[in-house]
Amino acid sequence: MRFLRPRTHPTVRGIAARRAHRTRCLMMPTHDTPTPGRRAPAEVVLLSAGPGALDLLTLRAVRELEAADVLLVDELVDPAIAGFAPGARLIRVGKRGGCRSTPQAFICRLMRRYALRGLRVARVKGGDALLFGRAGEEIAFLRAAGIEVRIVNGVSAGFAAAASLGVSLTHRDHCHGITFVTAHTHDHGEPDWAALAATGTTLAIYMGMRRAGALGAALRRHLPAATPVAIVQSASRPDELRWLTTLAGLEDVADVLDPGAPGVIFVGEAVGEASGRLPRPAVAARADADLRGEALAFA
Amino acid sequence: MRFLRPRTHPTVRGIAARRAHRTRCLMMPTHDTPTPGRRAPAEVVLLSAGPGALDLLTLRAVRELEAADVLLVDELVDPAIAGFAPGARLIRVGKRGGCRSTPQAFICRLMRRYALRGLRVARVKGGDALLFGRAGEEIAFLRAAGIEVRIVNGVSAGFAAAASLGVSLTHRDHCHGITFVTAHTHDHGEPDWAALAATGTTLAIYMGMRRAGALGAALRRHLPAATPVAIVQSASRPDELRWLTTLAGLEDVADVLDPGAPGVIFVGEAVGEASGRLPRPAVAARADADLRGEALAFA
Repeated sequence: MRFLRPRTHPTVRGIAARRAHRTRCLMMPTHDTPTPGRRAPAEVVLLSAGPGALDLLTLRAVRELEAADVLLVDELVDPAIAGFAPGARLIRVGKRGGCRSTPQAFICRLMRRYALRGLRVARVKGGDALLFGRAGEEIAFLRAAGIEVRIVNGVSAGFAAAASLGVSLTHRDHCHGITFVTAHTHDHGEPDWAALAATGTTLAIYMGMRRAGALGAALRRHLPAATPVAIVQSASRPDELRWLTTLAGLEDVADVLDPGAPGVIFVGEAVGEASGRLPRPAVAARADADLRGEALAFA
Repeated sequence: MRFLRPRTHPTVRGIAARRAHRTRCLMMPTHDTPTPGRRAPAEVVLLSAGPGALDLLTLRAVRELEAADVLLVDELVDPAIAGFAPGARLIRVGKRGGCRSTPQAFICRLMRRYALRGLRVARVKGGDALLFGRAGEEIAFLRAAGIEVRIVNGVSAGFAAAASLGVSLTHRDHCHGITFVTAHTHDHGEPDWAALAATGTTLAIYMGMRRAGALGAALRRHLPAATPVAIVQSASRPDELRWLTTLAGLEDVADVLDPGAPGVIFVGEAVGEASGRLPRPAVAARADADLRGEALAFA
């Protein structure tokens, strides 16, 4: 395994330092040569890395990693995944880790470049590649370039989070479905919380860690304040954290969430089933030092 | 691997034959003896078998299967999964395969019986165990009996179906989420299609193969007739079938679906992205011999 660039410290301070760092992040590799004798059609595998724990990779994903020449890996994916890909160069792309944002267009061009050279490219995304991974744009770009796309599924973070809570996402006493939704829409608007609440499905809200309090306030206009809420950050990872509260308590819990860790906010009666199981029946709704202590104790 | 009972022909005709067959299906094993020296707390693993293709099992699931003493396997799961569990007895439970319905209470009692004997019990469910698998009831039953429950995630059929279609479930040009919903509610009512349509999320409707036409009619009251629809049956399996149509065409496609095969019906603009990719741009909306032929050609 070769790293295109060494891992950098996650916080690079100062405008000049950030600019220089970003330039390093975007540096294109220039020393590749086409692999001789490889004449298969150009192809990229969109590979789902699952929620974090590497033993939640599928057998198919492992096989694809073993065969890969290049891994283009999102920042949320554990870099130890490279251990499954002994022959691959690992390139970290994505929106964290010091590189504030690798532009989507740049990721697309990297995939195209390597695939057209005949290399086996695995685009590695956290969770399942088809849920909130901007896979749609990458698929469209690659097809337009005449490159085949194969998709290898994985476990989305919401499922791993529910497993940690020990609850069904769709307990049939409480609901008949689940909605996975982002906290933001593409154009920075809000999802239609009234309609979502009216469905009666469990809500699994992704990418809402930085505005959990506002989400709670928005949902309280349409659902009872006592509606159970569960939050799982870094599901399936060693630093996993879990909170149980209600819509009324969400605003206080929001203050102690780690805004930099990925997380899922569940809203609905189905997650109330978790309350009997966690080490403590529920985390109090007040955001103080005790709460932080209890939450860590859940990890 | 030992089978508790041989697989039976899926159709057993005649009342007396069915009754005798059902008695065989429900026959309890009587020749187990407690495993000596095993004193771990009683535990059941809810194990997700994924959508069908066995290489979509996770590494964790494989490790659990290898260690299992007893597999209680839903009918939709490929019995070849027993190949991963060389030391396990395989017991088929569930709602198909000639046994019209293994009662849920009986499955629960079986899990409890084996777990309390100190055996390693894996309750094997298709897809992800936490989505429409009645896991909630089984978890509650086992906990009430003092039995620990661990959950091993997997790939739900909806994700595998989207991978086959080559589409993101949440293409951000079209939507900001996806709702997984059953065609029926617990009390045989209808989901709130108006609310579901209003969310603007992609809909993934499970267990709707037998009433796809009625679903189409219900949804047309709330969504444009031209809304893209994709149906995937037996996703990831050798006999997978795919259809692309619209809400207007769903009723006709419904006539040629295999009511006995599991399937997912997607409704929403996001699945319209599939149309450029399948071998034919779209399957016509007429249910005739040609349609059946084209659909089969997609497999």
